[in-house]
Amino acid sequence: MPEATARSSGSRQSAIQLAPMEVPKASDVLARELRERILSGEFAEGAALPPERELVVQTQMSRATIREALRILEVQGLVRIKTGRAGGAFVQRPNKDAVASSVSLLIRGRQIRLSALLETREAIEPYCAQLAALHRTAEDLDALDAANDAIADDGSPLAAFLQANVDWHVAVATASHNELLTGFMTALSQAIYTATENERFVDQEVRRLTVRAHRSITKAIRAQDPDAAVRRMNRHVHSYAAAVLKVDKRTEISVAGGA
Amino acid sequence: MPEATARSSGSRQSAIQLAPMEVPKASDVLARELRERILSGEFAEGAALPPERELVVQTQMSRATIREALRILEVQGLVRIKTGRAGGAFVQRPNKDAVASSVSLLIRGRQIRLSALLETREAIEPYCAQLAALHRTAEDLDALDAANDAIADDGSPLAAFLQANVDWHVAVATASHNELLTGFMTALSQAIYTATENERFVDQEVRRLTVRAHRSITKAIRAQDPDAAVRRMNRHVHSYAAAVLKVDKRTEISVAGGA
Repeated sequence: MPEATARSSGSRQSAIQLAPMEVPKASDVLARELRERILSGEFAEGAALPPERELVVQTQMSRATIREALRILEVQGLVRIKTGRAGGAFVQRPNKDAVASSVSLLIRGRQIRLSALLETREAIEPYCAQLAALHRTAEDLDALDAANDAIADDGSPLAAFLQANVDWHVAVATASHNELLTGFMTALSQAIYTATENERFVDQEVRRLTVRAHRSITKAIRAQDPDAAVRRMNRHVHSYAAAVLKVDKRTEISVAGGA
Repeated sequence: MPEATARSSGSRQSAIQLAPMEVPKASDVLARELRERILSGEFAEGAALPPERELVVQTQMSRATIREALRILEVQGLVRIKTGRAGGAFVQRPNKDAVASSVSLLIRGRQIRLSALLETREAIEPYCAQLAALHRTAEDLDALDAANDAIADDGSPLAAFLQANVDWHVAVATASHNELLTGFMTALSQAIYTATENERFVDQEVRRLTVRAHRSITKAIRAQDPDAAVRRMNRHVHSYAAAVLKVDKRTEISVAGGA
């Protein structure tokens, strides 16, 4: 029995065996503690964390550790760090921007194909349109109308068309009043914008069809007609995907390059 | 004319006006540079970045700055930092874990309702099942079968049931061979697991129906029948959501508390 041997060998240190172990980093420990208290709502949105020197006193950790922990939370979107005289770290509730940025890293780093982006949109967006028809408010309709006005201008440069396009799709997602779906759709719309910022993808015919489809889907959402909304959105995202992918096959424009 | 005034006043410094400006932090500059080179594929997966002291020499930045930049990339899932003798920072291509963790922060921090999670699943998963029926490989079918075997055991504890449940749903998403949908579904399945880890949500009847539904959807995926797969998955996620929400209304168990 190893225990007996260890005991009988008394002070012989070599008998005691330890395995390598992972020691948590001080900055991770502090970041986790602060994160939990932000997520639980104990620290209110906008509240200032104590200044660095005060945190050093309170936690007995080094200034470098404090700074590292705050940077971790900043990257996760849980604090905003302001420099200057009125500076400091301010509590922020997580929002869809952090989701959008992690999705965008995934898309770029994995070189996810344009077809997969469009496929994902085909999965999510008809359902968003359905929920939008059920839950839209007057404010939601204003946002949709504004995007419809902005996109209708034939002479506008491609960037303006694509931005109005993104705005309309995000407005539909927002009108679903489901924050998670809105987060996914915001990430996705931005990525599709970047990947299709090319005249070859979006010609005058695609523009014309897009304007018409957006109008008719907006109409269904306004009329609180979920069936028409889901059917029309289905048709719209499917035919947009087909048009773009036809060009994509011909020109083999890389998604990763532009994104 | 202000310019003329300024010129004529010669060396009077008060005439020169500057606005407050945002100065990028050194660690952000370094993190951005490394991030771009990782995302572009210039640094291969698994490659070791130069050691800290070497990066200090190369960049002329302080050790604290280097460390901060590496921590930022670690939080974003772009490097893995190993401690110890063979330690260092190793390049990692972004994966769905980073997306899952940002989604989980959003869900917890915004206290997103269980109904919104289930709604999001209803949006995404039928489409995943459809793609799975089209693209599944023999390996995908093995993963589905394994999850079906694990979930069928009536006497297993709730945690085992829920884990087998998550495994099956993730296996369906994986079989879609769309990495973005898989990322969304992984995040979502984990969050729904945590939120429903309660006997009141998942009684024997819910278990029995779940086992049966998973089997019949697996059958459609195996038979490469996308229409049956989407129809059955639709019914499954919809009836699961209805069952859980009926209990949720009665007991008002908070999603945020458990997540």
